[in-house]
Amino acid sequence: MKEFFTVSEFENVFEHIPQFPVAGIETVSILESAGRVMARDVTADMDIPGFDRSTMDGYAVCAASTFGATESNPALLTIKGTVDMGETPPLPVRPGEALGISTGGMMPPGADSVVMKEHASEIDPSTIEVYKSVPPGNHVIAKGEDIRKGQTVLSAGSRIRPQETGVLAALGHDRVTVYKKPVVGIISTGDEIVPIQEAPGPARIRDINTYTLTGMILKAGGIPVPYGLVADDFEALHQKCAEALNHCDMMIISGGSSVGARDLTIDVIHRLKNSEILIHGISISPGKPTILARVGQKPLWGLPGHVTSAMIVFDRVVRPFIEHAAGIQNPSGQKRFRITARLTRNVASAQGRVDFIRVRLIAQEKEILAEPILGKSGLLNTMTQADGLIEIDINTEGLDKGALVRVIPF
Amino acid sequence: MKEFFTVSEFENVFEHIPQFPVAGIETVSILESAGRVMARDVTADMDIPGFDRSTMDGYAVCAASTFGATESNPALLTIKGTVDMGETPPLPVRPGEALGISTGGMMPPGADSVVMKEHASEIDPSTIEVYKSVPPGNHVIAKGEDIRKGQTVLSAGSRIRPQETGVLAALGHDRVTVYKKPVVGIISTGDEIVPIQEAPGPARIRDINTYTLTGMILKAGGIPVPYGLVADDFEALHQKCAEALNHCDMMIISGGSSVGARDLTIDVIHRLKNSEILIHGISISPGKPTILARVGQKPLWGLPGHVTSAMIVFDRVVRPFIEHAAGIQNPSGQKRFRITARLTRNVASAQGRVDFIRVRLIAQEKEILAEPILGKSGLLNTMTQADGLIEIDINTEGLDKGALVRVIPF
Repeated sequence: MKEFFTVSEFENVFEHIPQFPVAGIETVSILESAGRVMARDVTADMDIPGFDRSTMDGYAVCAASTFGATESNPALLTIKGTVDMGETPPLPVRPGEALGISTGGMMPPGADSVVMKEHASEIDPSTIEVYKSVPPGNHVIAKGEDIRKGQTVLSAGSRIRPQETGVLAALGHDRVTVYKKPVVGIISTGDEIVPIQEAPGPARIRDINTYTLTGMILKAGGIPVPYGLVADDFEALHQKCAEALNHCDMMIISGGSSVGARDLTIDVIHRLKNSEILIHGISISPGKPTILARVGQKPLWGLPGHVTSAMIVFDRVVRPFIEHAAGIQNPSGQKRFRITARLTRNVASAQGRVDFIRVRLIAQEKEILAEPILGKSGLLNTMTQADGLIEIDINTEGLDKGALVRVIPF
Repeated sequence: MKEFFTVSEFENVFEHIPQFPVAGIETVSILESAGRVMARDVTADMDIPGFDRSTMDGYAVCAASTFGATESNPALLTIKGTVDMGETPPLPVRPGEALGISTGGMMPPGADSVVMKEHASEIDPSTIEVYKSVPPGNHVIAKGEDIRKGQTVLSAGSRIRPQETGVLAALGHDRVTVYKKPVVGIISTGDEIVPIQEAPGPARIRDINTYTLTGMILKAGGIPVPYGLVADDFEALHQKCAEALNHCDMMIISGGSSVGARDLTIDVIHRLKNSEILIHGISISPGKPTILARVGQKPLWGLPGHVTSAMIVFDRVVRPFIEHAAGIQNPSGQKRFRITARLTRNVASAQGRVDFIRVRLIAQEKEILAEPILGKSGLLNTMTQADGLIEIDINTEGLDKGALVRVIPF
């Protein structure tokens, strides 16, 4: 008997995430850390900067020596020397004195402020006039002001951007412990599909999903492993799945767009050891005939065969599971990076499901426009024209021209 | 005599882009094409799909046979057989007839429409009742409807996303001609800088810029080549620059934050053969002391030594030059991907320059908030806290709390 087809609500899909494990860890050079996910908190073992540092070219002074100074009534200070870059200051600064200092130079003892070069002039080689009163701490970054010793500066589960690499460099970490990239296997099925190197005969099309999914897995931070094409044959598909599951952290089978092909995927899942169907259908469009199973500790997806449906389901549904496996904390919480835009035409939507609408973005002087892409949902050219997706929730019947929408960049 | 210090307006900087060459071309597997830039237009040499294709499971029919059909007055059609996936239909469909068909199946001659399974029922093995009138073309993608033979489907100068890879796969291109990634050399200078593997002595700090710039060059689509640390020494810096320029398409020298170090960079540029200073200062904050020179056909940048200034100048100024070298058309035209957000506090800004303000993004139910990051501009922790930048233009004195701003993701 066939499994009863129970459709999951979109928002409930993500409740299945925590049951799956996170990939292991490895150590990489920080030169290769961009985009990787921190696997350990990093705590500072020193203050950054390690000394009070000037942020301007000018003179290190006691701020009090400049109080009341103006253009017409400058403060006169005695130049006692210069702080060389990278060197400890040759002597302290006392009231009424100054040492020349460059941006990044170490503040001398006694000095608590820097007068910018532009606000002073040398009236003779040992004397400056200061035209402006400076407060204590002016143009100085204090020892530990950027990063304090003992502070947790980077957290496990966050993605490493260039600025986080900078923090690692500042603290002298030339290697960093990150989560491994999850390995995601791809199997393409369908009797009508041929390898892309072949000319498709009549009634056949080339295997596109292997290639679009490869690109999307890379973008999501996984390692794609294409297992090639398998015909709609139970034994062949079962054998290839079992083989791939030995090597991968996650599997994606891209349909079989027909009901028969989907039933085949379900049958194969049932035969795999220690397997359980978690989701059989999601109330989204496109992408309703999506399957999620657990095989041992590994997620196995059955994605629609339609290229465009498979891409949208991947981005909206599968990607958070990959990000979870890659160690990202709160993988579905990226809503702050949506682009607010104004719809250029009415969009219809069915109640009872979440609709994802492809849009093109057009920057105007005052606002950004979101133009829904026309054309049948299955056309690949609607994806190459699109810059992003709008999500229309389950209780909304459609959106009016002029509505403000939040676009998910695609 | 020192070069006269002429500050360029921000928007004029990009006028220098076209004088620099685009990197060469190479051919890569489409499995490795994600993020690369098309170097040739691609024209379709076939129709996609190559045949009229059903997009539903159901029955291929002549639409006219269903006209007027309703629940209470169904149309009766004779089932003549089934279209197998990947096979040419066994026979044509005439008025009053139907062939079973699956999603992706080839439409038989004579049929112009598909009745969904859900809108019909088999009353005996050779007869169906159809409950709904379907128009011609219903649930059919026509031959060439996605991509028409002879159509230019991908354009040189565009970045390849997974969907563009899909188009290449559909057309049977397993390799694609892309622009080479430009090689960008990085030299870090400053007597106060030590390699990150060393503990910085008093008055010294570790070399952070090499690492932050490496990450940013990778993100921009370049190949970073770190040339290490060079002291503030004319001969050493000149020799290292000359050596690096032999191998790189672009060079970045990161500060010397002091005026003396900047003067040194200028002196070295003058000594390099066939060199010309194009920009010496830009009216932006942070990042005013930025230098752009041409050495032969190659851009050479002098970036501020401050890590945070260098990062912001890289993103806003240098990156479009790298994208140009990488073959991207209109590299500074990405304004449609800015995130509209509401400022949570007043932001001051000086007239006469473009200010870049770091903000944190907070997603709320109705809108996204942009919270300016507090703390001195030079602090690295302001960058790790930031999700993006706001650009305040040259004629604006500041922005009020509650203003809508467009945030550049960072």
